[in-house]
Amino acid sequence: MESVARLASFGVKRLYQSPRACAQISRWAGPKTATSIRRIHTPITNFASLESNVLRCLNPRSPSLRLSPSQLRLLSTKPLPGHRRPIVRFFYRLFAYTGLFILTSTGLVFAFFVYDATTYKDNSTISDIPVSEHALSPKRGGPKNLPIASVLVDDEDSPDMAAQRDKPKMVILGTGWGSVALLKTLHAGDYHVTVVSPVNHFLFTPMLPSATVGTLEFRSLVEPIRRIIHRVKGHFLQAEAESVDFSEKLVEVSQLDSSGNKVHFYLPYDKLVIGVGSSTNPHGVKGLEHCHFLKSINDAQQIKNTVLHNLELACLPTTPDEERKRLLSFVVSGGGPTGVEFAAELYDMLNEDLLRSFPRILRNEISVHIIQSRGHILNTYDEALSKFAEERFAHDQVEVLTNSRVKEVRPDKILFTQMEDGKPVTKELPMGFCLWSTGVAQTEFCKTLAKQLGDSQNNRHALETDTHLRLIGAPLGDVYAIGDCSTVQNNIADHLTTFLRTMAWEKGKDPEKMHITFKEWREVAQRVKKRFPQATDHLRRLDRLFEAYDKDKSGTLDFGELHELLVQIDNKLTSLPATAQRANQQGQYLGRKFNKIASALPGLRANEVDYDGLDEAVYKAFEYHHMGSLAYIGNAAVFDFGGMSFSGGLLAVYLWRSIYFAQSVSFRTRILLAMDWTKRALFGRDLVSY
Amino acid sequence: MESVARLASFGVKRLYQSPRACAQISRWAGPKTATSIRRIHTPITNFASLESNVLRCLNPRSPSLRLSPSQLRLLSTKPLPGHRRPIVRFFYRLFAYTGLFILTSTGLVFAFFVYDATTYKDNSTISDIPVSEHALSPKRGGPKNLPIASVLVDDEDSPDMAAQRDKPKMVILGTGWGSVALLKTLHAGDYHVTVVSPVNHFLFTPMLPSATVGTLEFRSLVEPIRRIIHRVKGHFLQAEAESVDFSEKLVEVSQLDSSGNKVHFYLPYDKLVIGVGSSTNPHGVKGLEHCHFLKSINDAQQIKNTVLHNLELACLPTTPDEERKRLLSFVVSGGGPTGVEFAAELYDMLNEDLLRSFPRILRNEISVHIIQSRGHILNTYDEALSKFAEERFAHDQVEVLTNSRVKEVRPDKILFTQMEDGKPVTKELPMGFCLWSTGVAQTEFCKTLAKQLGDSQNNRHALETDTHLRLIGAPLGDVYAIGDCSTVQNNIADHLTTFLRTMAWEKGKDPEKMHITFKEWREVAQRVKKRFPQATDHLRRLDRLFEAYDKDKSGTLDFGELHELLVQIDNKLTSLPATAQRANQQGQYLGRKFNKIASALPGLRANEVDYDGLDEAVYKAFEYHHMGSLAYIGNAAVFDFGGMSFSGGLLAVYLWRSIYFAQSVSFRTRILLAMDWTKRALFGRDLVSY
Repeated sequence: MESVARLASFGVKRLYQSPRACAQISRWAGPKTATSIRRIHTPITNFASLESNVLRCLNPRSPSLRLSPSQLRLLSTKPLPGHRRPIVRFFYRLFAYTGLFILTSTGLVFAFFVYDATTYKDNSTISDIPVSEHALSPKRGGPKNLPIASVLVDDEDSPDMAAQRDKPKMVILGTGWGSVALLKTLHAGDYHVTVVSPVNHFLFTPMLPSATVGTLEFRSLVEPIRRIIHRVKGHFLQAEAESVDFSEKLVEVSQLDSSGNKVHFYLPYDKLVIGVGSSTNPHGVKGLEHCHFLKSINDAQQIKNTVLHNLELACLPTTPDEERKRLLSFVVSGGGPTGVEFAAELYDMLNEDLLRSFPRILRNEISVHIIQSRGHILNTYDEALSKFAEERFAHDQVEVLTNSRVKEVRPDKILFTQMEDGKPVTKELPMGFCLWSTGVAQTEFCKTLAKQLGDSQNNRHALETDTHLRLIGAPLGDVYAIGDCSTVQNNIADHLTTFLRTMAWEKGKDPEKMHITFKEWREVAQRVKKRFPQATDHLRRLDRLFEAYDKDKSGTLDFGELHELLVQIDNKLTSLPATAQRANQQGQYLGRKFNKIASALPGLRANEVDYDGLDEAVYKAFEYHHMGSLAYIGNAAVFDFGGMSFSGGLLAVYLWRSIYFAQSVSFRTRILLAMDWTKRALFGRDLVSY
Repeated sequence: MESVARLASFGVKRLYQSPRACAQISRWAGPKTATSIRRIHTPITNFASLESNVLRCLNPRSPSLRLSPSQLRLLSTKPLPGHRRPIVRFFYRLFAYTGLFILTSTGLVFAFFVYDATTYKDNSTISDIPVSEHALSPKRGGPKNLPIASVLVDDEDSPDMAAQRDKPKMVILGTGWGSVALLKTLHAGDYHVTVVSPVNHFLFTPMLPSATVGTLEFRSLVEPIRRIIHRVKGHFLQAEAESVDFSEKLVEVSQLDSSGNKVHFYLPYDKLVIGVGSSTNPHGVKGLEHCHFLKSINDAQQIKNTVLHNLELACLPTTPDEERKRLLSFVVSGGGPTGVEFAAELYDMLNEDLLRSFPRILRNEISVHIIQSRGHILNTYDEALSKFAEERFAHDQVEVLTNSRVKEVRPDKILFTQMEDGKPVTKELPMGFCLWSTGVAQTEFCKTLAKQLGDSQNNRHALETDTHLRLIGAPLGDVYAIGDCSTVQNNIADHLTTFLRTMAWEKGKDPEKMHITFKEWREVAQRVKKRFPQATDHLRRLDRLFEAYDKDKSGTLDFGELHELLVQIDNKLTSLPATAQRANQQGQYLGRKFNKIASALPGLRANEVDYDGLDEAVYKAFEYHHMGSLAYIGNAAVFDFGGMSFSGGLLAVYLWRSIYFAQSVSFRTRILLAMDWTKRALFGRDLVSY
C-alpha cells in the first residue's frame, strides 16, 4: 500500500522533467518553482513522444494547476516521510531476487528429477528378433579358410540397419582421431560401416597428460565408440587387425576368447580405411620396460598410480634419504608437446596439491627433469615459444637437459650422453619414474602391410599413400590410410622432369638447358600446387624463394637451382606432423569424399567410368591446413598459429582450454570437462590411487 | 521514454482510488466524474497510511483541480493509445528476465574464473624445513630389532604438528568407516595421530555396487584419507599392520619398497585402534579364483571391465551361440544387500544402456542369477521387504535361486546344491561372470592377534572386545577394535549367576532355587541393560518375554527359564551387523571417549586414579542404535527402519539416494555424487572399459 503514494509522486515528478512541461509549470506555479524543479532533476534530452503524452495529460486548456510547497517537496528525490530507506529497499529487492533465484533453482531441480525419472526404463519384455543363420555360424573361406563375417548379428536390429545390408562394406580399423572424424562426416545410410579396434572408446589424446595427475577424469577424455558409430548405424567389433588380403578384399582380424585363445576371422570390405595409429619409438634404447608411456587411458592410470605410490613410499620412516630423493626424481624423456605437458602437469600437481596433505620434506626433495635430444624443447614450435617454455621451466625449477640422448634406462637410474663443448659426456640421473615420449614408430600391423606391398612402400615410419590418401601398392580406391600410421607421398622432385618437360614442350626448349624466369617459375609453382596441394604453404613467398635459390644472381633459375628448390620443398612436405589435427583433417577429407562417391556411384556405373580414377573424378586431393600448435606449460600456455606465436599466463591457459573444449568430441565430453575443471578449482586434484 | 506518461497516469489513477480522495474529486470535478472513476476501479479497503499521503499531496486548501474528459480517459484501465499490448509486455518482461538470467550466469561464470585463477599457485620457493635426524634414520629396537618410527618426517611441518609431538600417540589401523568416524569426531590437538593402511583413501562402500556398471564414478566414492586426517593434523603411512607387541606398545608394520622387498618397522602407540575390516568368507568353496569380489575400488573396476569384455566378446562373429549365452550369464553368489544391489545395478545397466549401442541379440540372451543359501534374499530385512525384492526381481527376469549352496566354481560354470522336497539336488549353471559376496571372515592380521591373545579370544570370526570396545586380553585401555573386524562380547548368560547372586544376596535366598516374579524380572532386566546397553532393544517388551518363557505358566520364572531367556538374548546380541552403520557408530563412540579422556587425564593423573578403569570412569559403554537398513533393487528400493518397513519405486530410489547423499563423507563427495547422477540422467552410463 505504501508504494501507491510513492508511485504517484514518481509519476508526477517525471511529468515535470520535460522542458515544455517545466515552461507550463513556470506559467502556472511561478518561475521560482520551475527552477527548483529543474535543479532537482537532471533534464532529459529526448522528449518527442513524452511531450505529446504530457500535453495530453496536462490539458493546457485548463491551466488552473498550482503546486503548493508541500507538493513540491514530494517532487524531490528524497524519500517520503514514513517511506523505506534505500538500505531497506536494497534488502527488500535482494530478498525478492533471492526468492526468485531459489524458486527458479527449485523449479529446475524439480524439472531435472522429472526428466531423470523418465530415464529409468522398465521395459523388460524381450521380443524375438531376426538374426541370420550366417551371422551365428559364419561360412569359412579365404586363403586361410577362416570364418568370414559377411553378415553380423546386428545386421537386422533396425529397419535402418537392414537397409544398409547391401550397401558397399566399409571397414575402419582403429578408433582414433582419423576414424572418428570420418565417422562423424560420413552420411548415414550410404555404407555398411564396421569399425574394428582393440579399444572400445575414442580417446581425446591432447589432454591425456592432464589425466595423469588427476586434473581431469579418465572418463572425461573418452567417448564410447559405439555411441559415435550409432549415427551411421554402423557396427563395432572389439578385435585387432592382423593382415589384409587385397585380392579377395578380406581383413584378417583376431581376438582372444574368454579362455585366452586367439580366434581369427575374416571381415570382407569394399573400402578399407586404416587408422591404427602408431606405437612408441624405442630409438634402440635398452631398458624401456622401466619406463612409462602415454598413449592410452591405461598408461595414464598407471602413471598416476606410480607417481602416488612413489610419494607414499617417500613418506615411510624406513625410506633412507637418498632413496627418497631417487623416488621423487621424475624424468621425462622427450621434449615434444606430450613430454612438456606431462612435466607441466606433474609440476602443477606437486606445487598445488602436494603440500596440502603430504609432508613438506617431499616438496623439498622433488625434482623434475626433461631430457631432450635437440637444442630446445618444443623444437617444432616457433623458437620464441621454445624459449618462453624453457624460461618458464627454469623458473619452476624443472630441469631441462638439452642436446642429451638417453643411452640406457635402469630400474633406478637413467644413463644419457650430453654434448658439452662438442664432445658427448655420459651422465647418469637417479630416477623413480621415467616417461618415454620420443616420437612414433610403425605398429606390427603396418609393418606386415608394408612388407606385403613390397617395393611400393619405401617409408620405414609409416604407410605411404598418394595425395588421395589411397594406400600405394594396393588396388586403387580400395584401401586408404589416415592418421599417424600414414604419410602422404609427394615426390615433387621425381615429378620435376614431368613439370619441366611439359613446360619445355610448350615453349619448344630442352628442359636440361632451360633457364626459367620469375614469371615461368610462377607457372611451375602453380602446377606443383595443383598436383600437391599440401605444398601451398611452402610456395607462398615465390619472390623470396626465387631470390634465395638464384645463387648466381642471374635473374633466372637453371635446372640445378630449380631442382634444389623443389627437393627442399619436398623434404618439408614429407613430414606431415603426427598430430590429432592431421588425422582429424584426413578423416574429414575421406568422409566427404566417400559421401561424394556414394552419391556419384550410380551415375558413374551407368557410364562405365573407370573405377580406379573414381577418387580424382569426384573430389580434390587432400590438402593439409596447419591450424597451429599449442601446449600447456604449467599455469601458462604457448600457441603457434602459422607464423603468429603467442604465449602467456593464466589467460592463455583459459584460451588453451577453450580450444580443446571446442574440439571435444561430444556434448557429453564437454560437460564432463567443464565439471572436471570445476572440481579441480573447488577441491583440488584427487591424490588417490587405485 | 514511453513509460513516463504511463507511470504518471498510473500514479494519478492510484491517488483517486481512495474514497476520501474520490469525495474530494467529487467536490472538484462534479459527482459524475467521481462515479465514473469509482466504476473503473475496484475500491481498496485499507487506506490508513495512504490517505495522509494523498491528502498531503492533493492539498485541499487549493481545491482548484479540474479533470478534463481526456484526463479521465487516462485514468481508465485501458492502455494509452500507442501503448504496449499485454502480449508485448509479456515478451518484454520475458526478455528482461532472460537478460537478467544471462547477466547473472555470466557474472557467476566470470566470478568462477576469477576464483579459479586464484587456485593456481605460483610459489616455487623452497625453504629449508626442520626434520629431526631420528625421523630420517630411526633407531632400532623392540623384540625384532626393527627401526622404531617414534618421530615422523612431518612432525615439525607446522606449529600445530610440533605442538602434538609429546601428546599421547594414537595409532589407527585401517581407513574404513570406523577409523574415519573416529578421525572426524576427535578433537584436534589432543593426540599425536598416525593412520596406517594399505590404501590411501576412504571408500564409501554402500554405493560400491553402483560403481561397477558406471552409474557412479570411482572417484566419487573415495575421499583421500590425508584430507580427512588433515583436520586433526595427523600423519598417514601407506603400509600394512603385521602384528602388535602389547608389552612394549609397538605395532609392527610392513610395506614393499620400490624393488619389491618387504620392509618392516615398528610404530609406537599409547592408544591403538584396530579397524582393519574383514576379508571375504570363502565358506570352503573351491575355485573362488574364478570369482570377483566387491570390497575395493579395484574390485569394482575389474568387475566393470569383465562385464564389458564379456559383452564385447558376445558381439564377435566367431563366438558360438552357446558360448554367447554363457558369457552373458551373470551369477551373484549371496543374497545379502551387496549381492542384491549389484544384481539390480547390473540389470539396470543391461536394460537401460545396453540396447543403445550393443546388438539386440545380447539383451535377449542375457541372464542374471542370484544364488542364496537361505529361504529368501535380504534375509536380515523384514520379510515383506524380502518378498517385495523377490517379486521385483521376478518381474525383471532376474532369477533368484533360494535354499541353494555353491559347491564349486569352475572357469565356465558354477555347481550348486538346491534343496528340493527336502533333498539336496546338485545343479550346474553356465556362467561368464560370478560375484562372490557371502559374508565376512577374519583378516590375517586379526587371526595373528587372536592367536597371540590365546584364551581371551574365542570368536572365530572377529576380535572380541568388551562393551567399552577394548580388545579383550590386551592391557586395558591400550588397544581398541571397531568395525567389521570386531565383535562386542556380551556373555550375559555367563554373568547370570552374578546377577542372580546379587539379587539372592539382597533377598537372602538361594539363587538356584529362586523363583522370580515379574517385578523382580524387571529388576534383572534393568541390570542387564545397564551392563550391556546393546541389549536394550531386545528387552523392550518385558511382559511378553516373561509370558513367553514362563512355560509352566506359574506366574514366576525359575532359574532354568530365566537362563533360557538370557541365552536367547545373548545370541541375538553377538551378531552385531557387519555394516558401515555399526563401524560408524563405534568410531564416533571412541572419538567422543578419547576426547573425554584427553580432557580428564590431567586431573586423573593428579589424583592417581587407576588407568585401567579410565574408560568406565569417563564415559558410558558402547550402545548400538540400529537406524535401519536399506537396499536398492532396480528402479526401486526397500527400507527397514527398526520395525517400520517401506518399499517403493522411483520415489524410494530418490529417498535411498538422499540418505546416502547425507551420509557421504565430505562436501566434495556430495558434489561429485550429484554430478554423477546428473551425468547418468543426461548421457546414460559409460560403457567404456580401460
